[in-house]
Amino acid sequence: MKKMNTSPISGTQELLPEVQAVFDKLKQKVAENYKAHGYLNVETPILERTEILLAKAGGDTEKQIYKVAKTNESMEDATEALRFDHTVPLARYIVEHESELNFPLKVSQMGECFRGERAQRGRFRELYQCDVDVIGRGDLPLFYDVDVISTLLDAFLSFDLKTPVIARISNRKILKGLLSGLNLQEKAADVYSIIDHSEKVPAEKTEAALDEIGLSPDEKAKILAFIYLNGEAEVVVDGIRKLGVENEILSEGLDELTEVTRLLKADSYTNFVVDMKIVRGLDYYTGTVFEFILPEYKDIGSVCGGGRYENLAEYFTEQKFPGVGGSIGLSRLFFVLNDKKLIDFVSEKPIEAAVVPISESENQYALKVAKEIRGKGLSVTVVATDKKLGDKMKYASKIAKAAIVIGENEVAAGTYEIKKFN
Amino acid sequence: MKKMNTSPISGTQELLPEVQAVFDKLKQKVAENYKAHGYLNVETPILERTEILLAKAGGDTEKQIYKVAKTNESMEDATEALRFDHTVPLARYIVEHESELNFPLKVSQMGECFRGERAQRGRFRELYQCDVDVIGRGDLPLFYDVDVISTLLDAFLSFDLKTPVIARISNRKILKGLLSGLNLQEKAADVYSIIDHSEKVPAEKTEAALDEIGLSPDEKAKILAFIYLNGEAEVVVDGIRKLGVENEILSEGLDELTEVTRLLKADSYTNFVVDMKIVRGLDYYTGTVFEFILPEYKDIGSVCGGGRYENLAEYFTEQKFPGVGGSIGLSRLFFVLNDKKLIDFVSEKPIEAAVVPISESENQYALKVAKEIRGKGLSVTVVATDKKLGDKMKYASKIAKAAIVIGENEVAAGTYEIKKFN
Repeated sequence: MKKMNTSPISGTQELLPEVQAVFDKLKQKVAENYKAHGYLNVETPILERTEILLAKAGGDTEKQIYKVAKTNESMEDATEALRFDHTVPLARYIVEHESELNFPLKVSQMGECFRGERAQRGRFRELYQCDVDVIGRGDLPLFYDVDVISTLLDAFLSFDLKTPVIARISNRKILKGLLSGLNLQEKAADVYSIIDHSEKVPAEKTEAALDEIGLSPDEKAKILAFIYLNGEAEVVVDGIRKLGVENEILSEGLDELTEVTRLLKADSYTNFVVDMKIVRGLDYYTGTVFEFILPEYKDIGSVCGGGRYENLAEYFTEQKFPGVGGSIGLSRLFFVLNDKKLIDFVSEKPIEAAVVPISESENQYALKVAKEIRGKGLSVTVVATDKKLGDKMKYASKIAKAAIVIGENEVAAGTYEIKKFN
Repeated sequence: MKKMNTSPISGTQELLPEVQAVFDKLKQKVAENYKAHGYLNVETPILERTEILLAKAGGDTEKQIYKVAKTNESMEDATEALRFDHTVPLARYIVEHESELNFPLKVSQMGECFRGERAQRGRFRELYQCDVDVIGRGDLPLFYDVDVISTLLDAFLSFDLKTPVIARISNRKILKGLLSGLNLQEKAADVYSIIDHSEKVPAEKTEAALDEIGLSPDEKAKILAFIYLNGEAEVVVDGIRKLGVENEILSEGLDELTEVTRLLKADSYTNFVVDMKIVRGLDYYTGTVFEFILPEYKDIGSVCGGGRYENLAEYFTEQKFPGVGGSIGLSRLFFVLNDKKLIDFVSEKPIEAAVVPISESENQYALKVAKEIRGKGLSVTVVATDKKLGDKMKYASKIAKAAIVIGENEVAAGTYEIKKFN
């Protein structure tokens, strides 16, 4: 026999059953929270037309995409590929089924996406993403920005992590308006990139980078002051107003940020801050942007992100579909939680009871007992191996929380006894 | 803008949210039943080494497999492909993690598989498969054949279909032993294929086919008698014994079939028959084989199938892992149920309540009411569009079972009223 490599391929997740049970529980909690907030679940296919996935040219998409072809077909002709996120398929879905959908459409999508990343520890090529989006037709009230953020926060809170989660919130109109007001539109891309990096480098480096792109001392001072504003919404908004830049888009952004945070607070959420360093998807988001972090584990980076986009389906239709959405990268999140032991793995034996017939002649009664217990909504298995009772009990103790031994006496009396494992 | 084709690609499933909700419900019922019977869920990656998928040469696998490659890679070098079923990845999983698993391992796998089928109505290239398998190390008692069949039957019964489901059961040892006893081993492949076809053609054609491969009149009579035996296990087993063929494997098969059906009956299952026309995966199954049909819709063919295999991982290891398993092809099943209207779509509005603030000033109180109702475990959404109340209520009636209108009075009094839609 040829010796084959039986490890899962790099960048994919493969778990032992008892660990998978914890992952599945997180997945279920996400799904339950999305549903509880009124999001309708939709599954778009994993296979998509390459043309659709690449409609929006540029960026890393083309390099990252996996094309598929049958063995006897050539890659040149491959017109199909694997989705790399849920957003592009959702855009196609909305355009295709528009007349049969009710807008605003609150929609959740959960499933695998595929990205041609370089294999790296904790970096996935096949990744389970859990998205929520609200899509409007023509327009979409700001209220839904709150809807998305609170839904995602509830999902995280339901995980019962051993460390806090914080949502960092910003609004892209603020920086856009600020740069407009300062007549720096042409340097916008550079400034965005500097802000995006400002988190990972000391303030001097950020300052130097702003010098390098030729800002005046006054401009630089204002951008720097802006970058390091964070905390309570009132404080940040006040701080930005004090910069004295007049611009309509800036004002709009500040008003939106104020309203989003006001509603979140009114809705009893406390685990969020306003932070102007949040940029996210440069050419995509247009209003509210947010990301979740575990502040005690800052090196992990963002564990959830999203925001408002002006036009979901601009590459597929002339119709305007504004939306707001967010995504939990569950594979990566789970890897991190597992790695840092931030989630409880205790008592994750997924089976409630193992029915253990002593010999084959008790199998039939064992089935009856199992069915009775299962009828109460419990998970139960029958251990029907040819092993000695001791071996069967050892096996049972590994997979189940309790055992029910069935011998001649139990069969004769029609009884059974549940014995919990310690 | 370039006009693009936004339909989902052929051979994939894409549903409207209210239909997706029914699909998701079936999926959940399958998962619940698998869990209730003590199967541990496992997710192997969708991406697999081509080498692993093609370890077992021959058959249609090579033609049907989808290889993946990044845009800048050539197909020749594609060492990765999409799984076409859950069995091959499971074999790899068992070999890879053997030392950390408890045997017999009862395992379920649910997720998309990919097959390069020719596009056809109701034929999927991306298909959602729900498998259960019990894998032994070295040996595996016959009892687990019953475990798998009863688990799959319970899943089907939980669907509340408007038509009955019947499991047809056979045992491959019977035909193998019969052909051995008749000294027809060399014609086995031909006979299997004739039996497999016998269902779709009149008896004369089957008879002619048996003539063609050169059976003597006595041999032909015995094979024909065998083919058309079906019904109660006792009747079938008795009928086969009356053929007067002596063979050890034949006896073993008859004993196994008798015991499997005896236990199923003892376990209160009535919706199964014994049928010698069941062959299934020629070069794979070695004992019990079964498939489920909807007898009122015979043209649909099998909606679930499986059986006993001697050696799951023979291409990856010298160790012996016998197993028994079965699979529900949920995409195809759902297509059929939908097409023939065999499943209840009534009241599938997935959201329990829509909270409708009359104006923006009631948004905050609407959030509070929504949170309160959600706390009771209900799915609830807030309708915060800028539309008139009538339009909002029309929207609410389309997506939710009930509405809660919030106006100034409700806010002032701190009350709310739930109004069910008819």
